[in-house]
Amino acid sequence: MFADRLIESIKAKNSCVVAGLDPRIEYIPSQILKKAFNYCGTDLKCAAQAIYDFNKGLIDSIYDVVPAVKLQSAYYEMYGADGVKAFYKTANYAKKKGLLVIADAKRNDIGTTAQAYSSAFIGKISIEGTTLRSVLDADAVTVNPYLGIDGIKPFIEDCNKYRKGIFILVKTSNKSSGQIQDLVTKDGKTIYEIVANHVEEWGASLIGKNGYSSIGAVVGATYPNQAKELRSVMKHAYILVPGYGAQGGTAEDAANSFNEDGLGAIINASRSIMCAYKADIWKDKYTENQFAEAARAETIRMRDEINIAVKKQFKG
Amino acid sequence: MFADRLIESIKAKNSCVVAGLDPRIEYIPSQILKKAFNYCGTDLKCAAQAIYDFNKGLIDSIYDVVPAVKLQSAYYEMYGADGVKAFYKTANYAKKKGLLVIADAKRNDIGTTAQAYSSAFIGKISIEGTTLRSVLDADAVTVNPYLGIDGIKPFIEDCNKYRKGIFILVKTSNKSSGQIQDLVTKDGKTIYEIVANHVEEWGASLIGKNGYSSIGAVVGATYPNQAKELRSVMKHAYILVPGYGAQGGTAEDAANSFNEDGLGAIINASRSIMCAYKADIWKDKYTENQFAEAARAETIRMRDEINIAVKKQFKG
Repeated sequence: MFADRLIESIKAKNSCVVAGLDPRIEYIPSQILKKAFNYCGTDLKCAAQAIYDFNKGLIDSIYDVVPAVKLQSAYYEMYGADGVKAFYKTANYAKKKGLLVIADAKRNDIGTTAQAYSSAFIGKISIEGTTLRSVLDADAVTVNPYLGIDGIKPFIEDCNKYRKGIFILVKTSNKSSGQIQDLVTKDGKTIYEIVANHVEEWGASLIGKNGYSSIGAVVGATYPNQAKELRSVMKHAYILVPGYGAQGGTAEDAANSFNEDGLGAIINASRSIMCAYKADIWKDKYTENQFAEAARAETIRMRDEINIAVKKQFKG
Repeated sequence: MFADRLIESIKAKNSCVVAGLDPRIEYIPSQILKKAFNYCGTDLKCAAQAIYDFNKGLIDSIYDVVPAVKLQSAYYEMYGADGVKAFYKTANYAKKKGLLVIADAKRNDIGTTAQAYSSAFIGKISIEGTTLRSVLDADAVTVNPYLGIDGIKPFIEDCNKYRKGIFILVKTSNKSSGQIQDLVTKDGKTIYEIVANHVEEWGASLIGKNGYSSIGAVVGATYPNQAKELRSVMKHAYILVPGYGAQGGTAEDAANSFNEDGLGAIINASRSIMCAYKADIWKDKYTENQFAEAARAETIRMRDEINIAVKKQFKG
């Protein structure tokens, strides 16, 4: 069960921080860029090499203080097939270091095509009678619910077969998320609430020994009131919380997605970890060359801040 | 303007059929598979080679009877970075043959990440001060509206900058599409209708000389009544219609997405074109080796059938 594997790692590291590896070129320290661009042939290949080198440095520095990394597919696809290779290489390296890998790909399509996506990200494929083999073999992937269960079911089946997980978009962290998600139906329910009910229902058969389902949800830290509401609608879903840090969500906001057992959510931070070396609180202590140490310091700071906020949340 | 480029090609070829290149291994004739698997090193590479060879054969046979091809990204991503390369190679080859390329990727994410996706599919990137360059350079891409305008705007900006198009999922062709899309708000509007209103509004600044916007929509042929309704809500949107053929939509169903000028929609068929050589109506006339000829025969049959249905639709 993905949910149990995740919880085991969270407990071992006393951390529910997920490091988001969304490596925009402008985040990457100049010496890494310089090295990659001296070494490689074409600019896409160089960019992909720089991304991988940056990710590797970050992973080496934080693998013992986070249970998982989240790779935002867009920032790899941007560099073509070379970027996609860097995505795979990063995922493999993270797994070697004992991290769970969440592919943030927000995929969605109708049944047979959803199956192809699921095979690509968390499942297996068989070509011409060869034995089943993994392509990316991520531990979990994010999916979009606009197409209903047809687009989700193949992923759920693979979660069951291969001990994987998915996080279904429920209430996203962006400003305009309400344009569709906050619409209220004639029964007085919001769309995000209806999706949340589906998540709970779809996940019922995949609840692990810790009481959490491998069918999780995405709920932004930028909407703390909705997060509180959604926590009680989706009692068994593990919630992936984006929007902390650079997007404006605080530790107290993020704490709304936890249950009283101190579990139930993982908090993603991308920019604030990757660019810690540029941040006001760290830039005097760490040089650009020490980007990995700065990332570690920020991850630990964030871990402790969230752990305190979660404990506080359930006191008095 | 993408919409004008599309219309020009539709008129030149008297065809609004889009050939969907969703190359599942089981669609590919055995001699192509055999050749690719003899030639290549690893199984993913072989699969990617077979996909490209199959696509090339299809494109060579139908490029003069369709205005565009639609590449379903999932069936390429399934074969890893090699599959992604086959996606690029197919897109490039199709463009060389004068076809417009629609990337069916259903991407969606928050602002900056949506920008990265848009750059990957229809926009351009700049690395370390190099001049802007294209990655995939498709003519259009499908996008999912669940995140609201934040996730759409970067695509619209690139449509404007680079004469590209998008097709926003409104009412998808699958069985469970109603689970979210058919929900009725307290104002008595369905979600798909609300999304359709947004499409019309978001596309207002990109209307070309033929009266159609480069911000289009996806509406399944499997929901003809909704298609009729949506045609009148989104007067200026070009509508990409999946669900014809293997999924059950008829030419008469598809005709609901057209306007009286005989324009306004393109009809996708994937399986019925790619697997024409296996279909009851063609399998006695064409061998497996003649898959390309069978695809052409089916495309022409479909083109004529739809042209007749569209004309009939607006007669008395």
